[in-house]
Order: sequence, then structure tokens, then C-alpha cells
Amino acid sequence: MDTKFSVAVHTLILIAESKVPLSSEEIAQSVGTNSSYIRKVLGPLKKEGIISSRQGVSGFSLEVNPQDLTLLQIYRALNQNPFFDIHQNPSNKCIVGRHIKSTLTNLLEDMESAINNELIKKTLNDCILKMKKELTTEELKQI
Amino acid sequence: MDTKFSVAVHTLILIAESKVPLSSEEIAQSVGTNSSYIRKVLGPLKKEGIISSRQGVSGFSLEVNPQDLTLLQIYRALNQNPFFDIHQNPSNKCIVGRHIKSTLTNLLEDMESAINNELIKKTLNDCILKMKKELTTEELKQI
Repeated sequence: MDTKFSVAVHTLILIAESKVPLSSEEIAQSVGTNSSYIRKVLGPLKKEGIISSRQGVSGFSLEVNPQDLTLLQIYRALNQNPFFDIHQNPSNKCIVGRHIKSTLTNLLEDMESAINNELIKKTLNDCILKMKKELTTEELKQI
Repeated sequence: MDTKFSVAVHTLILIAESKVPLSSEEIAQSVGTNSSYIRKVLGPLKKEGIISSRQGVSGFSLEVNPQDLTLLQIYRALNQNPFFDIHQNPSNKCIVGRHIKSTLTNLLEDMESAINNELIKKTLNDCILKMKKELTTEELKQI
């Protein structure tokens, strides 16, 4: 698992909390990466309508209320494939090869559901509130 | 996520059910891959003491009773890293950058636990029993 998901949450907190639209360069500085990686992460979020950027205007805006944006929506925008995949070419000549897909399918679906259930419980706003609770008095003055 | 986990379960069912030790070439034929990939998957399982291979003797043996071998043990032998990782270099100069790790850590741990809870529920033997239930009369005669 790469860190695209955590980068996306970091970025969306920045966009949600910033008073001015942030460019990919500014976001990259906070995340500690380069702006092309940020654009790569933001592309699918834009495609899903979670954020927008207007032509001629620099920066990104959030299109969904943080209270309504679940971490599952963010995760699924970035990852279309299931967490656990089954190998594609088991041999039909072997009993185990013939039945491995149906044997593992339910099990992998259960794991998929367990992860989805965790991700759907939390919204972007939950992350923002959790972060705000941790801020020092000095930091609270800055926001 | 690659398919190492499903390949490992397939392979362990073969090893558990075979009356004779199977070579990586024979396993590869059933899985539909090459023997070097099978050896790559089996290496960590051997290191964890789940299977063994003896010098001079071709093939692998199961060292743990299938009833006692949870899918979590198999998964963790193959994947030492957590499912969800946090980006390593958020900026300390930014409030969000300073607090993103602590904000996301609990959440990612909850997801990790959810997956572990699913994987620990099932053993290799559960997979074998599930597969056997699906076999046709003709297939049952062959095992």
C-alpha cells in the first residue's frame, strides 16, 4: 500500500481549512513531496467531484461538505481495485486450481467489507475535529 | 495489492492435501505461474516455520496443522508492513503537516485491526473444508 490515501486526507484537510485556494505547489510543501505527485493524487478526487479547480484561477476548492465526505469516498476515488486480489490463471486441470477462486472469493469479500465498514464510519470533518483537538494554544491562534 | 496471498493459500492447500511432497514446478503448474514466483512466495512461509523443505528431498511439507494455521499467520508471513501507511515527510512548518500523523494513526490502526480480525477467524483447514464442499462426485473420487 502506498501513501496516496494519507496524502489525500492531508491535502483535503488543507483545502477545507484554507481561507484561500491552495495551489499544488503549496500543498506539496506541507505534504513534503513534489507538486506533480500532488496533482496525481488530486486528479481522481477531481474526477469524482470531491474537489474542483477553475480555469484561470489558481488552486483547488472542496465541492463536498467535510461532514458528508466519508473516508471511504476518498479511498475509493483513489483505489478502484479491491484490496485483495485472486491470481488469474489457476489451472483447470487441477482440482485445487479449479476451485480456488470460489473458495477464496467470500473470504476476500468479508475482508473488503470490514475495511469499508471502518472507512465509512469517519468523515473528513472527523479528521479535522480530531486534529483541532491536538492543537496548542499557540497553533489555535494561527488558524 | 498483489496476488501473493491468494497464491500462498492455493499453494498451502496443495501441500496440505497432497500425499507426496510437491515441487515448486508442480505447484506452479496448478497456480498458473512459474516456479521462481512460487519459490518467492514460499520463502517467507518457510522462514516463519509454516512449511519446510529438506535438503536432498524434493518438495515442501506443511509444518503446522491446518486447523491451527490462521490466514492471519499466512498473510503476516508475506506482508510485514501495515496495509495503510502514512507519508513520511510532512512539513513541520505547517500546522496540518505537524499533526497529520497523530490524526491518522488511530484511524489506520482501526482499519488494520478490522482486517486482522477477519483473517484470524479463518484457518487453512476452513479453506480446505470449504473447497471440499464444492467438489463434484467425480472430483471427490480423485482425491
